[in-house]
Amino acid sequence: MFRPEIKVVDCTIRDGGLVNDSKFSFETVRAVYQAACESGIDYVELGYRNSKAEFSPEEFGPWRFTDEADLRKVTAGIDPGITKIAVMQDAHKAVPEDVLPKEESLVDMIRVATYVKDVDKAIRLANNATDKGYEATINIMAISHEGGMFLDEALRQLEEETCVKAVYIVDSFGALYGEEVQYYVDRYKNFLKTKEVGVHFHNNQQLAFANTIEGIILNANYLDGTMYGLGRAAGNCPLELLLGFLKNPKFNITPILKVIGETIVPLQEYLDWGYRVPYMLTGVLNQHPREAMRWMKSPESSDYVKFHSQITEDIER
Amino acid sequence: MFRPEIKVVDCTIRDGGLVNDSKFSFETVRAVYQAACESGIDYVELGYRNSKAEFSPEEFGPWRFTDEADLRKVTAGIDPGITKIAVMQDAHKAVPEDVLPKEESLVDMIRVATYVKDVDKAIRLANNATDKGYEATINIMAISHEGGMFLDEALRQLEEETCVKAVYIVDSFGALYGEEVQYYVDRYKNFLKTKEVGVHFHNNQQLAFANTIEGIILNANYLDGTMYGLGRAAGNCPLELLLGFLKNPKFNITPILKVIGETIVPLQEYLDWGYRVPYMLTGVLNQHPREAMRWMKSPESSDYVKFHSQITEDIER
Repeated sequence: MFRPEIKVVDCTIRDGGLVNDSKFSFETVRAVYQAACESGIDYVELGYRNSKAEFSPEEFGPWRFTDEADLRKVTAGIDPGITKIAVMQDAHKAVPEDVLPKEESLVDMIRVATYVKDVDKAIRLANNATDKGYEATINIMAISHEGGMFLDEALRQLEEETCVKAVYIVDSFGALYGEEVQYYVDRYKNFLKTKEVGVHFHNNQQLAFANTIEGIILNANYLDGTMYGLGRAAGNCPLELLLGFLKNPKFNITPILKVIGETIVPLQEYLDWGYRVPYMLTGVLNQHPREAMRWMKSPESSDYVKFHSQITEDIER
Repeated sequence: MFRPEIKVVDCTIRDGGLVNDSKFSFETVRAVYQAACESGIDYVELGYRNSKAEFSPEEFGPWRFTDEADLRKVTAGIDPGITKIAVMQDAHKAVPEDVLPKEESLVDMIRVATYVKDVDKAIRLANNATDKGYEATINIMAISHEGGMFLDEALRQLEEETCVKAVYIVDSFGALYGEEVQYYVDRYKNFLKTKEVGVHFHNNQQLAFANTIEGIILNANYLDGTMYGLGRAAGNCPLELLLGFLKNPKFNITPILKVIGETIVPLQEYLDWGYRVPYMLTGVLNQHPREAMRWMKSPESSDYVKFHSQITEDIER
C-alpha cells in the first residue's frame, strides 16, 4: 500500500554541490537528470539559483547558479516523464530578479532555504516564485538549532503569507533522533493546515533514512534523498534506500542503480562524503559540519580524539 | 536519564571475523580489548569458540576458536575494569567439550548463535555453559526468515529450559525496518518473562543504529555494536553511535574514538565492510549477503544493475 501524495525529491546535484562548490560536469548532471526521469522521481533539484553577487562564478561552478542555458544543455533530448526540475534559492544569498517568468524557464519548482531569522526574506522569494508561476517550498535549515519560540512565529507566517506546497524540516547537522523528528513534524503540523511537511535529513549519525521513514509514518509527504547519499559531509538519505522502501509502483530503482554505479561511486575518487567519525561527532554534538570537513582535509584527519577534544572545547568556551 | 539494566556488547572481533575468517592480529585484538575495557563496555566478544572439526585451523584464524592461551596473550596486563569477555558458539558448529569449567577460563559469557531449527542444539550448549559457571545468551540468527510458527515454540523453550541472561533478535540480513523491530520485541517479550531481549542489527539499509534505538525504546537491554561498524558485509550498529546516544555516565567514548582511528579504520586497506549497493540490495530483498560479498570481489562489482537482476532472478526461479 502506498500514499499517492508522497513526492520524492532527488537533490544529488544541489546538496552534492556543497562538497565540490557546485562544480559537477555537464555529463554528470545530465546522467543524474536522466536517471531521475527514467526512475519516476517526482522532482530533481539540479542546483542553486543563487546570486552571482554572493558567489563568484570564478570560484563556484555552474550549479550554484543553474542558468537556464545550462539547464537546456543538460536536459536536451531527454524525456522528462513525470519528473519536474527544482532549483534552490538561499533566502539570504539569492535575489528575486534571477527567477524568470515560468514560461521562459525549464524550472518547475523553487525551493527556498532559510534560517528562522531570515523567514521574511524567504517569504519574499517564495512569493516571487509562486507569483511568477512556479511551485515553491520553504526549507528551514539547521532545525536542531531552531527550536525556540520564533520557529512557531515563522511557521504561522509561512501558513498565512505564502502558497508554498511544503515546508521542510532540514536537519542540516544530522543531529536529530527519531523522537525529535516526531516532535518537529507535530509542531509543524500544528501550524501548517494547507501545506505539506517535507523532510531533508543528513546522515552524520546514520539516521537519515530511518528519520525519513519516521517522517513518512507521520505523514510528511515531501521526501528528499540523494543518489548514494551524495551530499555535504556525511551526506543525505540515500535515494536508493528510499525507493527500496516506498511501495508506489511508479518508481523504478534500476536507472538509479545504474547511475550510482557508473557516475556517482566513481566521484569518490575526487569527493569525500559519507559516514566518517568527525562528521558523526559534529552530529552527536549538534554542530555544523564545517569544522569536521576542514579536519578531514588536514594531515591529522584520523586523530579523532584530538578533533573531539577540540570541538568540545569550543562548546565550553 | 539512563537505564542501568542496559548492557552494551562489543562484537567487533567476533562479527568482524566473518570478513577475514577470524584472522585478526594479536595486536588488533589487544587494542580492541583495551579500548573496550577503558570505555566501560559491559562485554567484549573476542571471537567464536567453534569446533576445529568444523573449521580448519589452517583456513581460519585464531578467533574462530579463541583458545584460552590466545585470550591470555591479548588480555595480559590490561585492567578489565567492569568489562567481561564473551565468545560465541554456533549451535550447529560447536561442541560442549570446548568450554572449560569457568574457573579455568578467562571467558565470562558464552553466546550461542542459532537458527530456529537448531534451537535444541543451542539449548544444549547454553545449558552446558551455565552449568559450568558462565553467563550465557542465545542469539536467534536470520530473524527476518524465522517469523513462522516455530519461532514461538523456540521462545517458549528458551524461557522454560534455559537460564540464559538474554535472547537476541539477530537481523543477519539487515532487512528489518523499525516497525518490524517493534513486532519482534513484542513477540519475544510475550514469551520471555525471566530473560532480557537483546538486539543485534546489520547495516545493509543503514538502519542498524536506528533499529537499536527502537529496541532501546521498547526495553531491549542487551545491545550489540561494533567499532566503526566492522562486521560482515555492510557491518553492524556502530558502537561509537550507540555510546553517543546512551546517557549512562559510566561509558567513555574517547578510547573507542582512539582505537577506531589507530586500528580499525586502517583495516579498510585490507578488509571491505560498510554500506555498498550490493549489500543494500540483499538487505532490501531479505537475502543472505553471501552473494553480494562474492559480487564485491568480482571484476563487475560496480555493475549494480546486473547484480540486482541476478538476485531477483534467483527469487523468481
